[in-house]
Amino acid sequence: MKIAILGCGTVGSGACKLLIQNASEIAKRAGEEIVIKKVLARTPKKAYDAGLDKSQICTSFEEILNDDEISLVIEAMGGIDFAYDCIIKSMEKGKNVITANKDLIAIKGKEIFETAERNNVDIMFEASVGGGIPVIGVIKNMLCGNKFSYIMGILNGTTNYILTKMDKERLSYDEALAEAMALGYAEPDPTADVEGLDPARKIAILASLGFNAICTLDEVYSEGITKIESSDIDIAKHYGYVIKLVALAKEKNGEIVLFVRPVFIPKSHPLASVNDSFNAVVIKADAIDEMMLYGRGAGSLPTASSIVGDVMAIAKNISTKTTGKDPYKFYNTKKVVSVNSIDSNFVVRLDIADEPNSLANVTKAFAKENISIKTILQPIKEENQASNLIIITHKTKEKNIESAVQKLQNSECVRKVKMFMCFDSIDDI
Amino acid sequence: MKIAILGCGTVGSGACKLLIQNASEIAKRAGEEIVIKKVLARTPKKAYDAGLDKSQICTSFEEILNDDEISLVIEAMGGIDFAYDCIIKSMEKGKNVITANKDLIAIKGKEIFETAERNNVDIMFEASVGGGIPVIGVIKNMLCGNKFSYIMGILNGTTNYILTKMDKERLSYDEALAEAMALGYAEPDPTADVEGLDPARKIAILASLGFNAICTLDEVYSEGITKIESSDIDIAKHYGYVIKLVALAKEKNGEIVLFVRPVFIPKSHPLASVNDSFNAVVIKADAIDEMMLYGRGAGSLPTASSIVGDVMAIAKNISTKTTGKDPYKFYNTKKVVSVNSIDSNFVVRLDIADEPNSLANVTKAFAKENISIKTILQPIKEENQASNLIIITHKTKEKNIESAVQKLQNSECVRKVKMFMCFDSIDDI
Repeated sequence: MKIAILGCGTVGSGACKLLIQNASEIAKRAGEEIVIKKVLARTPKKAYDAGLDKSQICTSFEEILNDDEISLVIEAMGGIDFAYDCIIKSMEKGKNVITANKDLIAIKGKEIFETAERNNVDIMFEASVGGGIPVIGVIKNMLCGNKFSYIMGILNGTTNYILTKMDKERLSYDEALAEAMALGYAEPDPTADVEGLDPARKIAILASLGFNAICTLDEVYSEGITKIESSDIDIAKHYGYVIKLVALAKEKNGEIVLFVRPVFIPKSHPLASVNDSFNAVVIKADAIDEMMLYGRGAGSLPTASSIVGDVMAIAKNISTKTTGKDPYKFYNTKKVVSVNSIDSNFVVRLDIADEPNSLANVTKAFAKENISIKTILQPIKEENQASNLIIITHKTKEKNIESAVQKLQNSECVRKVKMFMCFDSIDDI
Repeated sequence: MKIAILGCGTVGSGACKLLIQNASEIAKRAGEEIVIKKVLARTPKKAYDAGLDKSQICTSFEEILNDDEISLVIEAMGGIDFAYDCIIKSMEKGKNVITANKDLIAIKGKEIFETAERNNVDIMFEASVGGGIPVIGVIKNMLCGNKFSYIMGILNGTTNYILTKMDKERLSYDEALAEAMALGYAEPDPTADVEGLDPARKIAILASLGFNAICTLDEVYSEGITKIESSDIDIAKHYGYVIKLVALAKEKNGEIVLFVRPVFIPKSHPLASVNDSFNAVVIKADAIDEMMLYGRGAGSLPTASSIVGDVMAIAKNISTKTTGKDPYKFYNTKKVVSVNSIDSNFVVRLDIADEPNSLANVTKAFAKENISIKTILQPIKEENQASNLIIITHKTKEKNIESAVQKLQNSECVRKVKMFMCFDSIDDI
């Protein structure tokens, strides 16, 4: 079987490296040799480092597109327009496609799946979510007897690294980000990571597969970690929680909630001990109850592992002439509902006016919105600091808290509010 | 597609229940209805409870075997001889087979796989290891680009429940076992669980798939948890460890070590926080680095989830006429080596004679075998108690310790020895 790889950066070079380094085992398992015929590479350095020779490197996509020997194209360039173009053209030429491109699948998934089905080719994208963790295959195939209740994950290694450093080494957000950049965990422009866009794409993909209904990026509420202060981490610790950037897709009565946001998680929860750049996904479904997959969510070789897994699956389909026979089925239509309509516990931090009535006003406003308070803490004020109030609520809707806080702000009793979702009991959020 | 289920106990009734309860979603995903035509059940009560009606229940295997409409047989009876007979006969009649029978796969796997290949049918057994955790498919298919370094797991829920209770609630072994039996976690005869036979079967299966070489039950060294005392748990806790019944398959230079035994694991390791009846598998491989799968390792519906996943895969193969096209490939021959030849840290508990020279004799004997001691503790002796010595070694081979201890026993300096493997750094055991 002859394949081509588009792009030879971190992802593409990893795939080359793995296919070369484990070639003999891979051939035995696939029942045939997997030959990298062409690699589209602007700068061939990484391709040479990965073990390719000059004859394998090309600079024109058309050369690959028009090579009828190539039955599988791996798109490892990233970006939207050119990648999309290459994928569609490849499929229209009868070539199967693997992509690691989460942006593209989260935005143009529907068009890509339809083009694949029309052309009887396979499209696979295990590497687009969770790096080396085979979460897509597990959800789509292995757990396909289940009805999913939720899929919840730490799906971004950069932000998890930053939060771990802030927690374990008491670094500030800026210090931790600088460290992540120095180590290459964060991109030169870290926006997509720290603002939660990257995990938002991933949870859109997992939700689509889990609930068999197309969920797109713009349906995911997303909030990053840039506003998290060391004092938030301290509060979490004090009450037995850890702050994690959680991506959640949850279904209830045909309604889906999709978000990425920092959440207070109990220390005893499996996700709480997922540290550094590791990723993890917790799946709750009717038959399996609870399951967690944990591993390397990024990196050259872990991502390559997922690509090669897809290569082997497609190799089998090519050899049995069954490509395109297992299309993604989005037979459901689900309603994505607003994130502030779900029930959860919340941690609310209020800077309140230094007046005798403030505390009474706050608790009264919360009571009026039927928000039941679980614990309340007013730390001793240091000089020149605003009076701080920390409230952990019983289960309520975020919009109730928003409404209470708005009234308080009008009364000038509250100066600043910060709110975190808090998963005391995750089962029935 | 019409299927039959042999046996309607915990596993069989779970499969019926799940196929009935999620029938419409399963049909949409599979592209066709999955019809349970016959269930072989000695006592039909559980079958009725699972939602079957009288016409579906039969008491003769021949009725199923001779029904040409039935293209898939799910063996959910357990046991060896009759189950083996049914599986082989079904395959010879061109029927695909799913089994949850770990005993059978671990003992007769080779014959079963060969019969399947000869008859162009599928044989799948995801439910045989890890209950609802899809570890077999992950190892066989999704990580197939990797070279595996080790597969290490907590593969038995009963013993993990007992150890968790001993650790968290300070129960004795007998008390914890009694509780596990009362809750139905332990069988009336718990031997296969507490002596490590059940996880030994499972690790033999995972090793066969991971290393592509048949590994059988009799090649697994197995030791249970019956000799673990509360004081062992206390020592582990004191030094920052947790005792877990670990199943390990590790490859190094073509040699495989296979064992089930209680191991001291550092508290920070992902397996250390796998509690109660949960199972987990850690996989270390060249591309993914480290990965963990965690979930329900037993139970009616989790096991059913794995069975239904297999049903869907076989349904696809039947509809594309590709059954039997993906046989298990055991192209490697590996040497299984003795468990006491691997390098590890050890915790050694010695009851020594109450003589001034004892400590000196012990340390001298250890030094003679080149065993470097990391920490040594001699707790203050209570009246009428033997003098106790706790040694944690640096990396050494178990046989060196055995040899040192043997010499000491001859000198009557040591009365009783107890030894645990201790995974300080799991990477290079």
